[in-house]
Amino acid sequence: MATSELDVPRFGQRHRRRGPISLPTGRTAPLAGAARPPALSPLLPARPMFQTFDETALTNAVAPRVGRLRQALAKLKVDAFLVPRGDRHKGEYVPAHDERLKWLTAFSGSAGLAVVAPQRAVLFVDGRYTVQARQQTDTSLFEIEQVPAAKTSDWLLDALGTGQTVGFDPWLHSIDEVERLEAALKPSGIRLKPLARNPMDKIWGADQPPPPAAPVVAHPLSRAGRSAQEKIADVQAALAKGGEDAIVLTLTDSIAWLFNIRGSDIPHTPAVLAFAIVPAEGRASLFVERDRLSETHASQLEDIADLVPPEALTEQIDALKAARKRVRLNPATAAYWFSRRLGEKSVSRGPDPCQRAKAIKNAAEIKGARSAHHRDAVAVCRFLAWFDQEAPSGRLDEIAAARQLEAFRAETGKLKEISFDTIAGSGPNGAIVHYRVNTESNRRIGRGELFLVDSGAQYADGTTDVTRTIAIGRPKPEMRTHYTLVLKGHIAIATAVFPEGTRGVELDPLARQALWRHGLDYDHGTGHGVGSYLSVHEGPQSISRRGEAVLEAGMIISNEPGFYLEGAYGIRIENLVLVNPPQKPEGGDRAMLSFETLTLAPFDRRLIDTKLLTGEEKAWVDAYHKRVMAEVGPELDAADRRWLEGATKRL
Amino acid sequence: MATSELDVPRFGQRHRRRGPISLPTGRTAPLAGAARPPALSPLLPARPMFQTFDETALTNAVAPRVGRLRQALAKLKVDAFLVPRGDRHKGEYVPAHDERLKWLTAFSGSAGLAVVAPQRAVLFVDGRYTVQARQQTDTSLFEIEQVPAAKTSDWLLDALGTGQTVGFDPWLHSIDEVERLEAALKPSGIRLKPLARNPMDKIWGADQPPPPAAPVVAHPLSRAGRSAQEKIADVQAALAKGGEDAIVLTLTDSIAWLFNIRGSDIPHTPAVLAFAIVPAEGRASLFVERDRLSETHASQLEDIADLVPPEALTEQIDALKAARKRVRLNPATAAYWFSRRLGEKSVSRGPDPCQRAKAIKNAAEIKGARSAHHRDAVAVCRFLAWFDQEAPSGRLDEIAAARQLEAFRAETGKLKEISFDTIAGSGPNGAIVHYRVNTESNRRIGRGELFLVDSGAQYADGTTDVTRTIAIGRPKPEMRTHYTLVLKGHIAIATAVFPEGTRGVELDPLARQALWRHGLDYDHGTGHGVGSYLSVHEGPQSISRRGEAVLEAGMIISNEPGFYLEGAYGIRIENLVLVNPPQKPEGGDRAMLSFETLTLAPFDRRLIDTKLLTGEEKAWVDAYHKRVMAEVGPELDAADRRWLEGATKRL
Repeated sequence: MATSELDVPRFGQRHRRRGPISLPTGRTAPLAGAARPPALSPLLPARPMFQTFDETALTNAVAPRVGRLRQALAKLKVDAFLVPRGDRHKGEYVPAHDERLKWLTAFSGSAGLAVVAPQRAVLFVDGRYTVQARQQTDTSLFEIEQVPAAKTSDWLLDALGTGQTVGFDPWLHSIDEVERLEAALKPSGIRLKPLARNPMDKIWGADQPPPPAAPVVAHPLSRAGRSAQEKIADVQAALAKGGEDAIVLTLTDSIAWLFNIRGSDIPHTPAVLAFAIVPAEGRASLFVERDRLSETHASQLEDIADLVPPEALTEQIDALKAARKRVRLNPATAAYWFSRRLGEKSVSRGPDPCQRAKAIKNAAEIKGARSAHHRDAVAVCRFLAWFDQEAPSGRLDEIAAARQLEAFRAETGKLKEISFDTIAGSGPNGAIVHYRVNTESNRRIGRGELFLVDSGAQYADGTTDVTRTIAIGRPKPEMRTHYTLVLKGHIAIATAVFPEGTRGVELDPLARQALWRHGLDYDHGTGHGVGSYLSVHEGPQSISRRGEAVLEAGMIISNEPGFYLEGAYGIRIENLVLVNPPQKPEGGDRAMLSFETLTLAPFDRRLIDTKLLTGEEKAWVDAYHKRVMAEVGPELDAADRRWLEGATKRL
Repeated sequence: MATSELDVPRFGQRHRRRGPISLPTGRTAPLAGAARPPALSPLLPARPMFQTFDETALTNAVAPRVGRLRQALAKLKVDAFLVPRGDRHKGEYVPAHDERLKWLTAFSGSAGLAVVAPQRAVLFVDGRYTVQARQQTDTSLFEIEQVPAAKTSDWLLDALGTGQTVGFDPWLHSIDEVERLEAALKPSGIRLKPLARNPMDKIWGADQPPPPAAPVVAHPLSRAGRSAQEKIADVQAALAKGGEDAIVLTLTDSIAWLFNIRGSDIPHTPAVLAFAIVPAEGRASLFVERDRLSETHASQLEDIADLVPPEALTEQIDALKAARKRVRLNPATAAYWFSRRLGEKSVSRGPDPCQRAKAIKNAAEIKGARSAHHRDAVAVCRFLAWFDQEAPSGRLDEIAAARQLEAFRAETGKLKEISFDTIAGSGPNGAIVHYRVNTESNRRIGRGELFLVDSGAQYADGTTDVTRTIAIGRPKPEMRTHYTLVLKGHIAIATAVFPEGTRGVELDPLARQALWRHGLDYDHGTGHGVGSYLSVHEGPQSISRRGEAVLEAGMIISNEPGFYLEGAYGIRIENLVLVNPPQKPEGGDRAMLSFETLTLAPFDRRLIDTKLLTGEEKAWVDAYHKRVMAEVGPELDAADRRWLEGATKRL
């Protein structure tokens, strides 16, 4: 998938934020020109696939809403109010209930922050979204500012004066975020004021979608590989080591991993929007409505933890404070509400130990990942065969292609969800790294163009994420040069050998060397961690300039260098790789780590300029293609198998 | 040179510390078996070249000295005392006056810390020195502990109890160092106490060498490229930007650079042991005895700065405090004395702006570097020709080879000093990364062995540092394999192309890839910054796992991957490289940085296994050799030129 977000500045707390979620309205027109359209599988969740816009109506709603917010602020006696895009868990996806920023401003980007003051208002977005923000919001009301150059604190210092107050919802900002802003405003005598209730919710009123409360299901031991009991014991050992009495977990993928549960509260990531408290000794508390679980599942969970109604969270936090317990919070991700409620004396700042533990997959999870990738490979290869046949007609468009790919995945009979909104960019749309097709941007895929498709699936045994770039008709020589340079970077990562202790930042340049020599580069990271039937973006591992986490055996990470020629085409080649256990190469004196490529789908041979590849690189492509044919071929029908045979021929 | 120190843990404050300095006693026997020994040039500074040991006498002196220190501590009412290796500037080299650790413990390593308590004493050293420390000191008195596993604070917590006090010399520890130790001891009620006078100096008494006070000379504008006035104005602009009133400079290479002065207070680095204060407005103060400068030079300097007697430093610091000035100190390198004297309210913590500015060489410095490298190349090539003729006789030893190399450098007529103690390791000695030959370790260079020689020169126009590994007789196949893998890493750096903003950490793996694939690696950084007729180790730039500084056009850095087979041989190939200005490669859309190799000396063709090189790598070696022949050949006599012709033939 697009890792552009990895290196793109944003407001966020976690390095895994994604493009706009689907709007809860509209449906696309019937499939345009797609041959052989298999019926969408009944397993496919009922949700609108592609965003449609009625820009004008949304923009017109901005002024009255801002007006009502200003009235509310006057009553609350605050001189400005912060409206971030985010929920109480600061995760990548935000439920409709928490889309306050979009409701207020009509801006639908995946990251942003509005500040509303009595006379002025501003919308901060990053470089991906400045154009979109101007189009969507009412620019007679909102100034548009681009982060990180523009800073919230500078705007507030300019708009407000000594003694004035900035209101905020303490549930929607991390501890770090609030403290940084507080420090910047303090010298000028501007105060931050946490509000007990978010005024947006009052003015949104009955139209605000309810908080999600989807069923919570068990992630069976056969897939999880380790029991919740064992995992909780490890967290408790970490707390004991740190001399802490408890930890508050706020990240939903940590909680899903720890308790071996899954849900569907938010799109694409099967996490459960819940909090948890794990004491160093005694039973953990999972804050979730008991009726979201089956009775059997609830009783099983109650063997190891208390299921506590979410309303009782405040009470338990207060009890920890009263008992003078030392409670670990991760200031980068935990809501400010927690540190304020606990008080400085009770808070111990530290990492969430689940994040690293979750990233290192165990044998059951690795087995699941291989099996999920095998299954996904069949769908992807069917799609590529289909696309190769249909695209030259000139009747295919991006939405049709994306729907078809999802349909093939649904036909596996195992698809739970796609793991993110498919990126299907033809021609110049491929060069927009964060591109998500919508009914307005949708374009026909033309001959002589490149088509970039980045997609993934959630299966119960694993999460996938794969990008292929395909030529329609005869590619231009420079397309082949650029594709081959990207492929060289991809191969450099796939074949990397490195000692234990190596961090992602140290491998990142290997993926770029070939491009750098030609004065080219891409402005996103090379790889992000991927969960096990969890988030398609997970930390702490990454291959990027910021990849400070050590790569450890069992981690799954994407390998996705790219190249983007603005206004012309985008190229990205992405496989997921698994870090192998250390092994001593023959003749060596040290054990080394390496990668196993999990994803199986051919590279477009028409785009490979073999003159630019070394003998070793060619041999790697041939061996990979041979493996794709051997593993996927037998699962295809005769026509698709013939296609795959051609697509995996020796270079 | 050996960058092992780059990545080896140490006590230190700066990442440029070096092997043992020469002992101020002894001289080696006459040249052993060296043919054609040119007389040492009269320009060569008179100093003992190689360490000789009378281990027993030194070790026997330890007990009485520790006894006297313990008596002194009892009188001072402190329960332990810290004896670091270092002076008030925390630089790489330490003048004899400050070799308190060696005088007390007989340990001559380049990094270490002793702690003496009434009943116990400990010597902390890093992994390079555990064996040497045991051999040199009196182990019936000193426990030997290895950092970073062992911590000073843990030892003190074990040896002392609540209410006890640890004395230290506030001039010999950085602010960071003292604060970290203080924080670790505080919870146990152990206090740190800065002592007004170092008790070591009293017991050392009349035998303690006086502080150095060598002449201070001008570094002419033609070589410096920028006037001291301009540089001071830049520092003042940085202070104004930071809202600070002054900066105290404590790093000797910063001061030498800023005032365009050079000296010979310490071996190998032509810096001046001095302090300076630069106010945001007004005249800078350089604390140095006026009579160390010529009258002309002193008056010239007084046009732009005050020459203040060192005794007046305290007074000026007190005046800054009294005037409530904000004074910048670098807590990582400035002595604790300064922050204590100024008081917390007056101290502003920040970097020394001279360090980065000094690292980016201007046109005059670059011209000087090229010229110094050309001159040095002639000496090195003469040495290599000589060595190739003499070594097979089996009569050469390491000291003879090192002396001969220095003699060729002296014959240039321009040698000021060698830039560090030559590393000349044959056979197994080559595998000791921090090896410095002494009369005890000196061994004859045998046939079938490898000889590693790492050396450099200080010329008025530039500093050099070069390593070659040479085969004597026919090398074993595995030597050729290992050499070629190291060469591949060297070429990968030499030919690297990278965008602006790239940090050294991102290039480091390029030098290791070939070794990693064979399960091999080296435990030191790949490159360190090099000064302009200043320290052969300078920051902030480095190519290493810790290379967080961005590489900028004009920086000079070493390129020195290696491989070490314990007990058998060491391989290192080192050239200095200069970061070129950004240039846009043809067909590219971004400007890229690259390196110009400054060092000119052939690689040993007998050690290159061409089967392991790609076509591009072979072409690079051939082009480099052609350049060596073209630039150095005309400067050699006929015999040496013939040798160089053979040594630079196409692969």
